Amino acid sequence: MNVHGRHYRTIWPKPGDERVIQLIDQRSLPHRFVIEEVRTVAEMAAAIRDMHVRGAGLIGAAAGYGMYLATFESDCLSAAAAQLKATRPTAVNLAWAIERQLKNMSAATTAEERQRVAFQTAREIADDDAEHCRRIGEHGLELIRSLSEKKGGAPVNILTHCNAGWLAFVDYGSATSPIYAAHDAGIPVHIWVDETRPRSQGSKLTAWELGEHGVPHTVIADNAGGHLMQRGKVDAVMVGTDRTTYTGDVANKIGTYLKALAAKDNAVPFYVALPSSSFDWNIRDGVKEIPIEERGSEEVNYADGWHAGNHVEVRVAPENSPAANFGFDVTPRELVTGLITERGICEANEEGILGLFPEHRSR
Amino acid sequence: MNVHGRHYRTIWPKPGDERVIQLIDQRSLPHRFVIEEVRTVAEMAAAIRDMHVRGAGLIGAAAGYGMYLATFESDCLSAAAAQLKATRPTAVNLAWAIERQLKNMSAATTAEERQRVAFQTAREIADDDAEHCRRIGEHGLELIRSLSEKKGGAPVNILTHCNAGWLAFVDYGSATSPIYAAHDAGIPVHIWVDETRPRSQGSKLTAWELGEHGVPHTVIADNAGGHLMQRGKVDAVMVGTDRTTYTGDVANKIGTYLKALAAKDNAVPFYVALPSSSFDWNIRDGVKEIPIEERGSEEVNYADGWHAGNHVEVRVAPENSPAANFGFDVTPRELVTGLITERGICEANEEGILGLFPEHRSR
Repeated sequence: MNVHGRHYRTIWPKPGDERVIQLIDQRSLPHRFVIEEVRTVAEMAAAIRDMHVRGAGLIGAAAGYGMYLATFESDCLSAAAAQLKATRPTAVNLAWAIERQLKNMSAATTAEERQRVAFQTAREIADDDAEHCRRIGEHGLELIRSLSEKKGGAPVNILTHCNAGWLAFVDYGSATSPIYAAHDAGIPVHIWVDETRPRSQGSKLTAWELGEHGVPHTVIADNAGGHLMQRGKVDAVMVGTDRTTYTGDVANKIGTYLKALAAKDNAVPFYVALPSSSFDWNIRDGVKEIPIEERGSEEVNYADGWHAGNHVEVRVAPENSPAANFGFDVTPRELVTGLITERGICEANEEGILGLFPEHRSR
Repeated sequence: MNVHGRHYRTIWPKPGDERVIQLIDQRSLPHRFVIEEVRTVAEMAAAIRDMHVRGAGLIGAAAGYGMYLATFESDCLSAAAAQLKATRPTAVNLAWAIERQLKNMSAATTAEERQRVAFQTAREIADDDAEHCRRIGEHGLELIRSLSEKKGGAPVNILTHCNAGWLAFVDYGSATSPIYAAHDAGIPVHIWVDETRPRSQGSKLTAWELGEHGVPHTVIADNAGGHLMQRGKVDAVMVGTDRTTYTGDVANKIGTYLKALAAKDNAVPFYVALPSSSFDWNIRDGVKEIPIEERGSEEVNYADGWHAGNHVEVRVAPENSPAANFGFDVTPRELVTGLITERGICEANEEGILGLFPEHRSR
């Protein structure tokens, strides 16, 4: 999507020098727009591990390009694969992208052929991710169009949580893709952006990308969404997901469940947008079976941002107070109005999901 | 309650020099414990306006002592009353304390008598506030004792939001009073403290006061409570209120409603603790009729805390992103398990409330 009026993806081969991969270093957002050049597997592993790039789709694309860079370094690709896989052990797209590279390269007989195949595969992984997100936008656009017609053309107010934006993928995003599609189609939208403590990806990333693309939005504290829904100021909730079971339970950034409860209580439709790569085809009961990552307590005890041109962390809580930091929660299927996928929209239950993805029926 | 092992109230006449009022300057908490000396009406007005002191009960007590200080400055008390009332226009206890002072002083015939009456009235206002909170603790203690017995003596996990602690009153607090009573009675408790963005009164004040009094607690992001309830890690929610209708609708810090929804969804009891001064005897429908204060957007766009010994504000959101800042939300009575008042516990409905406070039946 657009930055300073120009179209960007989150990662791409450097024009004129395709042995260099360029990516947006998200650590400096929203206060600085930094493009990083990555030349080695070690640099790409660091970029993933230290979260210069993050988000399911983008991590997969970065790993794909990382394997491409590996073809210039050594004949032994398994070491590079292991190095990349170790960066974010819970990210499913990481292992998936690396396996896809290894499989495609296995038929290559020369170093040059391997490089060519790896480059093509990396681009395919990135293009597929962008294309899936684009289609999510096409399907979701119709939901927003219908809400807009009901409101007689008044702006459609959509609440989102965390960053399921183009910064989490290669382009478009999941939850944001219908929003960008509506905005670009001239349908007036306004987005309530949950701050999303403790890492504040809403304030830092979602607000930034919406602003750069010109989408009207307002940042709110995570506490505010219920009140807004009570007062009729939210027409729909759209969020992404880190993992959704084939039965429709949605694991997403901590706090999503609270917004789903408020949506239900106020008859506000609650949509989850996801490419099919985010489905878990093995887990039946999301609330009981999906493990929830616990992260470091310092993210809760501190806040970080910019002060006098510097990135500064400030201690909010008392020095002696412990904190707990749960990364995700699970929204039960009963609270989800619909899932927006690259193949269309379905109900959040086994029948709806397998209806769109019948190839998974046998499992 | 205790600070560094010694008992404090939030405000008191200076021992040995009762023309000086001492109070805890809460702006520096949790990182510095500062006692401020207030000698004039102007200083007390500034302390209330600039939130050195805050919280319904404490604002009333501060206004009471402010009127006492006024008796040394001029024969015209109405100017002082107006100056104090203007500091926090929405705080009901402010006007109430000032009126009580003016009424009691009206019979005094000499300056000395007026000073004596004002001093006594200010102490009564503070003592009454502390006594009401102490009784809330007595009643709420029985709820916690019963939860503890059900758990066979394992720690009772209580989630609280914002600061309805002794720092918001003269002593004990409202939501925290049952917690302190249980802790002091040897019943093991553990408190989940919601950070409470955007002002973070949970992290800054509630965590600090619980820590100083030795109550085990853990700070969490506002997003985490639903997940904890889903996983059975919360035995009860206890919060305060800024205003509760005589029909049982509860206005409290923004985000309270979301926790009430999660409590309901997980069959966790949700209690609201309040002195009777926080009832609004005129409003029937809290969701429709209670006005919600909108505060400055900078509280959402920035976070503040301590860095290298200094209090620092950091910008989290992009420079160009607007933010909205709603101070409160309303939890409908259907989500409230019970109200804990100085006269006992009742259901959150007209019958329950007027049963405890029959003198308000005629309204």
